[in-house]
Amino acid sequence: LDQEAKQAAELHQAQLTKPPGSLGMLESLVVDLAAMQGTVFPRCDNVHISIFAADHGVACQGVSAFPQDVTAQMVLNFAQGGAAVAVLAKQMGANFEVINLGTVKPTMHPGIINQIIAEQSGDISQTAAMTEEQLLQGLQAGKQAVDRAIALKSKLFIAGEMGIANTTSATALLASLLELNAEDVTGPGTGVSGSRLEHKASIVAQALTLHQGINDPFELLRCLGGFEIVAMCGAYIRAAEKGLPVLVDGFISSASALLACKVNPEVRKWLLFGHCSAEPFHSKVLQELDVEPILMMGMRLGEGSGAAMAVSILRAACELHSSMATFSDAGVSNSGE
Amino acid sequence: LDQEAKQAAELHQAQLTKPPGSLGMLESLVVDLAAMQGTVFPRCDNVHISIFAADHGVACQGVSAFPQDVTAQMVLNFAQGGAAVAVLAKQMGANFEVINLGTVKPTMHPGIINQIIAEQSGDISQTAAMTEEQLLQGLQAGKQAVDRAIALKSKLFIAGEMGIANTTSATALLASLLELNAEDVTGPGTGVSGSRLEHKASIVAQALTLHQGINDPFELLRCLGGFEIVAMCGAYIRAAEKGLPVLVDGFISSASALLACKVNPEVRKWLLFGHCSAEPFHSKVLQELDVEPILMMGMRLGEGSGAAMAVSILRAACELHSSMATFSDAGVSNSGE
Repeated sequence: LDQEAKQAAELHQAQLTKPPGSLGMLESLVVDLAAMQGTVFPRCDNVHISIFAADHGVACQGVSAFPQDVTAQMVLNFAQGGAAVAVLAKQMGANFEVINLGTVKPTMHPGIINQIIAEQSGDISQTAAMTEEQLLQGLQAGKQAVDRAIALKSKLFIAGEMGIANTTSATALLASLLELNAEDVTGPGTGVSGSRLEHKASIVAQALTLHQGINDPFELLRCLGGFEIVAMCGAYIRAAEKGLPVLVDGFISSASALLACKVNPEVRKWLLFGHCSAEPFHSKVLQELDVEPILMMGMRLGEGSGAAMAVSILRAACELHSSMATFSDAGVSNSGE
Repeated sequence: LDQEAKQAAELHQAQLTKPPGSLGMLESLVVDLAAMQGTVFPRCDNVHISIFAADHGVACQGVSAFPQDVTAQMVLNFAQGGAAVAVLAKQMGANFEVINLGTVKPTMHPGIINQIIAEQSGDISQTAAMTEEQLLQGLQAGKQAVDRAIALKSKLFIAGEMGIANTTSATALLASLLELNAEDVTGPGTGVSGSRLEHKASIVAQALTLHQGINDPFELLRCLGGFEIVAMCGAYIRAAEKGLPVLVDGFISSASALLACKVNPEVRKWLLFGHCSAEPFHSKVLQELDVEPILMMGMRLGEGSGAAMAVSILRAACELHSSMATFSDAGVSNSGE
């Protein structure tokens, strides 16, 4: 982080025609961005959104409200511009790409990058999610997405995900990392409730029992992750290495983010968090990461949609910072003068 | 409200490619807008922002962190585009107007509508804020702003305010309406603390004692209001009469909104609330109005800035609603299929 740019941005904020602190989070966000982008006047004009999709073997356990085919169907829907995050990406003029890391039904479309690792990850309640080689392939796919973002001179990176049953995987990863019980943290995901939610929690518990005692974050990812969760983790690690600010989305993305921070605590400095999901476990995870999310609007869609919603807030923060008058410019008396 | 448009919007939402409810507040906001605008596909492209400014006699009691001259200075800063809400208005392409209802120092600028009622309202700790005629002038100024918005075919109205000491007036109004004690609800406003905050609370208490036992909302406004607070109340009443959706800003605006709802309970149906202010009393007032605010980012600037920040959220909600694919369009399986 660039401490000089950060201090210069703080000094500039203090001169703008408003009571100090009265723009709340808009002030801290722009100062954080200044430190990350290494400039007094950061911008979020050129946003890069990479959506990683993959199928999960654990879907066969009936943990989702939707059939597994929906992963591949939604990959197409992203590419065709019909999914929520695709609509938001278009509205904000972002670079938008969709990476299929492996779905049971293949997807062919000029807008899809097919980097197939396998047709799905292993059922984490019965076996490891993937091999070491598959783990490395997933991390590499994330790294490559960030490198593409940098080549396109993006100033902000968003990773999104799609994968039926991936809240099961993320819940298992986070419960393992935070040493919590499956029954206490398993949530509805796409919308399971009642006995189906209890069943989902029991599958998470089974996965935790099978893969207990793992401390290494990469080994956790290998056993309990999914290809898209691994790729986002790889992307966050790479973004921090290259100094590209990241806007994290919701629950699944936060699992990747927490794992990336376990791999390298420096990653945390490069992360902003777009929103707090309605998935109940998310707020606990944000607390663990010491995060104040930008938005709290009860969203729980994933896909990067919550982060995409927060881009307009960051852009406004940047615009206020660069375009508001200072007390001296405007001839406005400051407090105490 | 148009119940047919509302139901049609709800039906359309249910067909979009996402788990039902997963866009959280974005779904309810667009449905509310559909009911207000009387169309299945509402839009917030053409936003009208009217800033009402006025000086307050009670400023002489030392209740603000800023000198009274700042009101007029900021009126100029609005007109010159340097104030926060002016920057946001420009960024979103809103119709933006500034109405000076009376400042101790006059303001002359082609961008300012001077509708001077008096150079300031009366010191509410000593006397009534205004005469009945002044009250009517203030209400009329608000009504006229809404009529201009309608003439410009705006689909969303935002009122903002500027007036040194106006949190004192708003606190007194709201404490009176909600039957709360000054000491329990008086907050920092632009930034007073410690003994100055205690002093501010004692001035609010003095105003409440002087003007106790008033039930009529217009009489409350006359005794404890300010010209800008009155104008915003008049604007909200007129917007509801004409069926123009309103996006309410923060603490001061909510005082006007609650009073407008007391005058005519139908007003409530036309109000959306942009954010919850860091001014501590605001969250109580929002509860009273049964409001879930769109943003909670610790802002406490007023000027309409919090509402202006929320416009991008409403626009995204409208865009998602009109541009996302349906399950049948995209060939995506719905849950339970």
